[in-house]
Amino acid sequence: MSEYKAPLRDISFVMNELLRVEDLYKELPGFEEVSEQILNAVMAECGKFAERELVPLYRSGDEEGADWQDGVVTTPAGFKGAFEKYVENGWPSVSGNPEYGGQGLPYMLASAIQEVFAAANNPWSLYAGLTIGAIKTIEEHGDQRCKSEYLGRLVSGDWTGTMCLTEPHCGSDLSLMRTRAEPEDDGSYSISGTKVFISSGDHDLAENIVHVVLARLPEAPTGTSGLSLFVVPKFTLDEEGEVAQRNTVHCVSIEKKMGFNASATCELHFEKAKGFLVGSPNKGLACMFTFMNAARISTGLAGVAHAEKSYQGALAYARERLAMRSLSGPRNPDGEADPIIVHPDVKRMLLTQKAFTEGGRAMLYFLALQEDVAARGSEDDAKHANDLMELLTPIGKGFLTEVGYEATNHGVQVLGGAGFIRESGMEQIVRDSRILTIWEGTTGIQALDLLGRKVLATGGESLKLFTRMIDELCESDEKGEHSDFLEPLCACKEDWLAITQYAGERAMQNLDEIGAASVDYLMFSGYLCLAYFWARMAIVARAKMTSLDSEQQFYEAKIMTAKFYFDRLLPRSQAHRLALQSGGDSITGMPEELFAL
Amino acid sequence: MSEYKAPLRDISFVMNELLRVEDLYKELPGFEEVSEQILNAVMAECGKFAERELVPLYRSGDEEGADWQDGVVTTPAGFKGAFEKYVENGWPSVSGNPEYGGQGLPYMLASAIQEVFAAANNPWSLYAGLTIGAIKTIEEHGDQRCKSEYLGRLVSGDWTGTMCLTEPHCGSDLSLMRTRAEPEDDGSYSISGTKVFISSGDHDLAENIVHVVLARLPEAPTGTSGLSLFVVPKFTLDEEGEVAQRNTVHCVSIEKKMGFNASATCELHFEKAKGFLVGSPNKGLACMFTFMNAARISTGLAGVAHAEKSYQGALAYARERLAMRSLSGPRNPDGEADPIIVHPDVKRMLLTQKAFTEGGRAMLYFLALQEDVAARGSEDDAKHANDLMELLTPIGKGFLTEVGYEATNHGVQVLGGAGFIRESGMEQIVRDSRILTIWEGTTGIQALDLLGRKVLATGGESLKLFTRMIDELCESDEKGEHSDFLEPLCACKEDWLAITQYAGERAMQNLDEIGAASVDYLMFSGYLCLAYFWARMAIVARAKMTSLDSEQQFYEAKIMTAKFYFDRLLPRSQAHRLALQSGGDSITGMPEELFAL
Repeated sequence: MSEYKAPLRDISFVMNELLRVEDLYKELPGFEEVSEQILNAVMAECGKFAERELVPLYRSGDEEGADWQDGVVTTPAGFKGAFEKYVENGWPSVSGNPEYGGQGLPYMLASAIQEVFAAANNPWSLYAGLTIGAIKTIEEHGDQRCKSEYLGRLVSGDWTGTMCLTEPHCGSDLSLMRTRAEPEDDGSYSISGTKVFISSGDHDLAENIVHVVLARLPEAPTGTSGLSLFVVPKFTLDEEGEVAQRNTVHCVSIEKKMGFNASATCELHFEKAKGFLVGSPNKGLACMFTFMNAARISTGLAGVAHAEKSYQGALAYARERLAMRSLSGPRNPDGEADPIIVHPDVKRMLLTQKAFTEGGRAMLYFLALQEDVAARGSEDDAKHANDLMELLTPIGKGFLTEVGYEATNHGVQVLGGAGFIRESGMEQIVRDSRILTIWEGTTGIQALDLLGRKVLATGGESLKLFTRMIDELCESDEKGEHSDFLEPLCACKEDWLAITQYAGERAMQNLDEIGAASVDYLMFSGYLCLAYFWARMAIVARAKMTSLDSEQQFYEAKIMTAKFYFDRLLPRSQAHRLALQSGGDSITGMPEELFAL
Repeated sequence: MSEYKAPLRDISFVMNELLRVEDLYKELPGFEEVSEQILNAVMAECGKFAERELVPLYRSGDEEGADWQDGVVTTPAGFKGAFEKYVENGWPSVSGNPEYGGQGLPYMLASAIQEVFAAANNPWSLYAGLTIGAIKTIEEHGDQRCKSEYLGRLVSGDWTGTMCLTEPHCGSDLSLMRTRAEPEDDGSYSISGTKVFISSGDHDLAENIVHVVLARLPEAPTGTSGLSLFVVPKFTLDEEGEVAQRNTVHCVSIEKKMGFNASATCELHFEKAKGFLVGSPNKGLACMFTFMNAARISTGLAGVAHAEKSYQGALAYARERLAMRSLSGPRNPDGEADPIIVHPDVKRMLLTQKAFTEGGRAMLYFLALQEDVAARGSEDDAKHANDLMELLTPIGKGFLTEVGYEATNHGVQVLGGAGFIRESGMEQIVRDSRILTIWEGTTGIQALDLLGRKVLATGGESLKLFTRMIDELCESDEKGEHSDFLEPLCACKEDWLAITQYAGERAMQNLDEIGAASVDYLMFSGYLCLAYFWARMAIVARAKMTSLDSEQQFYEAKIMTAKFYFDRLLPRSQAHRLALQSGGDSITGMPEELFAL
């Protein structure tokens, strides 16, 4: 079983050579000092921490699983020790607001750290993973008291947060939510209801857990416009702000799942639990949206992380395992067979993993960078960054978790029968990453958000945010030196405009056409986005080839992988285009009652 | 959690309306009496047995798992009781040779039974699943004594069989096999070596287990031409043919796996175990090939079975679960939301499952029927059936296990977060079906067999076996009534010929091009095959629409699903065509040492 190593060289390539963030951060107030050197140094430490503390707990955590006894959740052996070091070393606070003890470093850096921790041990890192949501909610919508009571210890990582949305009868459809909040005389609220699938809803890693809960005030309107947001701590605080009394929110069970076994997925009962309103009454959903982009980027990063981990495991095996001879002649004549990496189909699977992983990393770091610009850039820049993020985030989440899952399955396939055995560690990556196309909005929900809200609702105008970037890239290639990548990229862009127009026209006749087209549209968009980032990476790599002889092979691999992406993966966009352009009739025309025959 | 029901109506449609097997069996000696009525009656009983005895053990078997203690394997609670009934009711012997107590019914019928048992509980049915290999080996290559000693109780199901090929250092590449066989004075052989991943290598369901083992005789040539086949019983027999002495083959451990937890995957140590040569020395591999087609068809059927089971579970959930409103207006205005089946993307996932399941069933029953013709038809018919089976079996195995696995993943996705929870039963179907693209030759191995051995080695001649069927179907549509299906089918056939020629030309320059093209070629071929069967099914359904009013909806669903297949799934063939026609350079040109950078 191969051990995951943080892909520091590639991370640095994306940050410093592709996105050249140092130049950009020089213009962003507060980030002026964030140099290439600092970024690389932080990531090197991050890699060490992940490899030493988190990787060794990945398999054992899965075997042991989170445990629930009499309302108390215990995490697997070693989780608590690793969490203590994580907090001590300041990892939770990297991008936190300095006002509350954060280090004030860019969100893009925090995202790269997230990727590495998720690849090393996502069931572990998830215990801290939802805290960002609680922080953002309180920071942007909480009152002063709430901020001073909670933010410091959430930012430091001493306390963790949760997001309590889903109820037994409603997941994607929040309008059906039933949890109630009754006002109390002291200005607090009494929260009652049942929330399910709450990641990290209880555990033994932190002194307190801060639940962010959607609930309904009395007389609130039905639907999503009647939801308000509350902070409900596991322990309420005393006058000094220290944990005092156990609140009446309890974990009544944890789920047995396909994967993420070390992570406690809790059913929480709120029985007149003390809570505090955050933001305005009935504006809870709007408050939630302030960090939905970040949560979706995180999930996309987890998709890439699992793909990277699986790639590393498959590659190590493919270089060692001997079976059969290369069809074009023995490559290892002294051995009894050739290593299986010589077989083209094994290479195809490895290259597919590599292309999705590195392409996805580039796209998501780029998106995280937009979040930095949105937070610190000029008004115009911030708006542009925000608009771009709004458009591309559902693609980054939906598409990259889908192809990330595909990549983890290739990892098992490279090992063959051995990949199906738990000891290999490869099947766990499949089981764990299976949830990612569901969390934070399923692929179907991302696709509706993209095609319905982001594209068609703007009459297709929003596409220009991205097509302009493609056009600029093409225009920069004055001598046509990169037409091998840029021509198919432009052709794909034209197809994108065409299918958008097609979908828009069909939607005017029947709104169900949006749903019928949406996932093919999302996947097409994903292949286009990765084509853009692969073209950019290839162009950067070509420029570097001549100048840096010692690293020539790194850049050569980039260019080869880009070529593989364009030759072998981008063609899939045509399948999605053709399916979409067949119209929705064969879906919408199928009556529900005909399915069971 | 929905309970699987045998899809009797569709099974009957394929057997009796699509393939019209009664007419065919009338011409096959020994099958003259096999009527539609008999087939339907047997399948009805099969469904009852599966639903009553096997379905209830699926989840519990997974939770409990097979157990190994001190060399002895114990199956989960209930498995033994169900197995006894299975034997008592005569299910193992359906297609067995009457000479040895079999019922002499068609292999196609046995295949349908296999599908139903695999869908109900494949980890259970696998305990008997490899017996067919042992029977075929002994029947075709064993001497008279071997036949009389073993066949009766293998056919009856009292004893089970295994196939012992894989060793720790070799799976796909049998040439590396090391297990040795030393001749003994009494004419038997002493077998020594280690075999791994042996399904049902030990268990408590049968009195005896008959291992079919590949091993090397002393001085045997290296490579696959030095392998011989042996029968090694768990218990050797006394003069009366009853079990006597425990042989020195022992299960030293069972694997912890991603799925199929109730099935014992054994590591077997042969320590001078008593074995009997089957067939000629050094011809073991050729003997194995006699039942490789059947084993691959069985695995393809398991792919379809898992897809069917997942479809049933997803459909039941989609009809009950309420979330959001249909974009085109409420469909369940009195409820608080619409059932999710109204959402086009949910329909898309369900239709994808349905199209792969029913299309795959048609293709595999057709292949199983060829096996019947090959066994009993005239010399010419048998040769034709055999050739066709040779061509199509790698497609049936490789493609249908790939899309079957995809279908099971759609099943989880329809449920969303609930699908990730073990209790739903949906995630187990994913975990279990993950092995099917690996067993009996990985998808990559099937693809090499198809493109290299079956297609290019015949100069493409073998394709005519299938293109002729397509041409005949098109010619039968004199009035062009079915051109909506037949035109795209013919276009796809032309593409098939074109990519075959392309691959052949590239292969002449570099044999590695075969490996680079092979899986895309296999997948393209799969989409073409299903297009053919969906076109045929639609044509049959159209003819029935007018005549049978009471069942009109069944046929309407068939036609709609065919339309969905052509509109939304067949376009994927174009992605495979484009990828293949980009040539192998972006795969073969990537040096092994560049992967790790």
